[in-house]
Amino acid sequence: MSSLLEQLIEALRVLPGVGQKSAQRMAYHLLERERGGGERLAEIMKEAMAMIGHCARCRDFSETDVCPTCANSSRDHAELCVVENPADRLAIEQATGYRGLYFVLQGRLSPLDGIGPAELGLDQLVTRLGEGEVRELIIATNPTVEGEATAHYLAQLARQANVRPSRLAHGVPLGGELEYVDRGTLSHAFGSRSEMA
Amino acid sequence: MSSLLEQLIEALRVLPGVGQKSAQRMAYHLLERERGGGERLAEIMKEAMAMIGHCARCRDFSETDVCPTCANSSRDHAELCVVENPADRLAIEQATGYRGLYFVLQGRLSPLDGIGPAELGLDQLVTRLGEGEVRELIIATNPTVEGEATAHYLAQLARQANVRPSRLAHGVPLGGELEYVDRGTLSHAFGSRSEMA
Repeated sequence: MSSLLEQLIEALRVLPGVGQKSAQRMAYHLLERERGGGERLAEIMKEAMAMIGHCARCRDFSETDVCPTCANSSRDHAELCVVENPADRLAIEQATGYRGLYFVLQGRLSPLDGIGPAELGLDQLVTRLGEGEVRELIIATNPTVEGEATAHYLAQLARQANVRPSRLAHGVPLGGELEYVDRGTLSHAFGSRSEMA
Repeated sequence: MSSLLEQLIEALRVLPGVGQKSAQRMAYHLLERERGGGERLAEIMKEAMAMIGHCARCRDFSETDVCPTCANSSRDHAELCVVENPADRLAIEQATGYRGLYFVLQGRLSPLDGIGPAELGLDQLVTRLGEGEVRELIIATNPTVEGEATAHYLAQLARQANVRPSRLAHGVPLGGELEYVDRGTLSHAFGSRSEMA
């Protein structure tokens, strides 16, 4: 049986991007300087692992049956933004003034990995689109091959339900230098240029 | 009151080198893919924070009153290696074939920060050196200004107790290129050159 310290170092490696050395550093740091913070982290982590489930409406993480965003009647229920995962949802929520609702796929279409429409809750999405409340489906899957394929599939579902699909704009990032923008993005931005007012 | 997820992200920031973004990534990773690992980590962390104290002999972290190394009668009790912190002790233990004992200062002399001999347990070290069992004090504090000052102080204590002090060799690291070695190290290595057999 290895020591508690060794067990702690081993257990910390479950965190993404944390190898043996970082885990050691974290364990020593907690023991030397942050016992209180470590105790609090342990408590919250235990509670979070046990209590956080998924929102029945949007599939985002939630500790309640329906998440606060979905339950918020002051948000615009006519707009639904589809994202691949909770981190994307958070990024949009923090960066934009979007006041509509979200739908979190928790993945993207990837037949080779066995991830099809059922795994992404698309039956649930279809039902929701059929209810008639949603008027625009804002598709914010990632601009990767799989994300684009998922976006096209989602756009079809929207059109079938008479909901207008839209997609985030692609182009040159603000503050970027053209010289360092990848070719695909630059070509797309050039082709999608818009007239200046 | 913020959500459990927000509390988890906040609590994770107690880990060294973990900012808002990394904490988010860790929280989502645990919730999406590693609930079991997260539960285990929470459990071990709670136990470790509560149960790991310091060895009464060497001041290293230990969950027992005297750590396994100090209690190991097959190790050489005539050699005592002084290090600044538990991570240094572990590095030496893993890299060398050293079979003696350790003494962990849990810091270095730093009068401006209020860290003097008492904070480093040097009274305990003096008592130990006076017991007559230790014959060599291997001083492995870091090669920094404060580490060197601490090393000189420790060497004095050793000589007063008729114990031979020694210091880790400084020089060009193995596998390094002279071109990239810092000046101080190169100058020291040049001055301390040894005759080849």
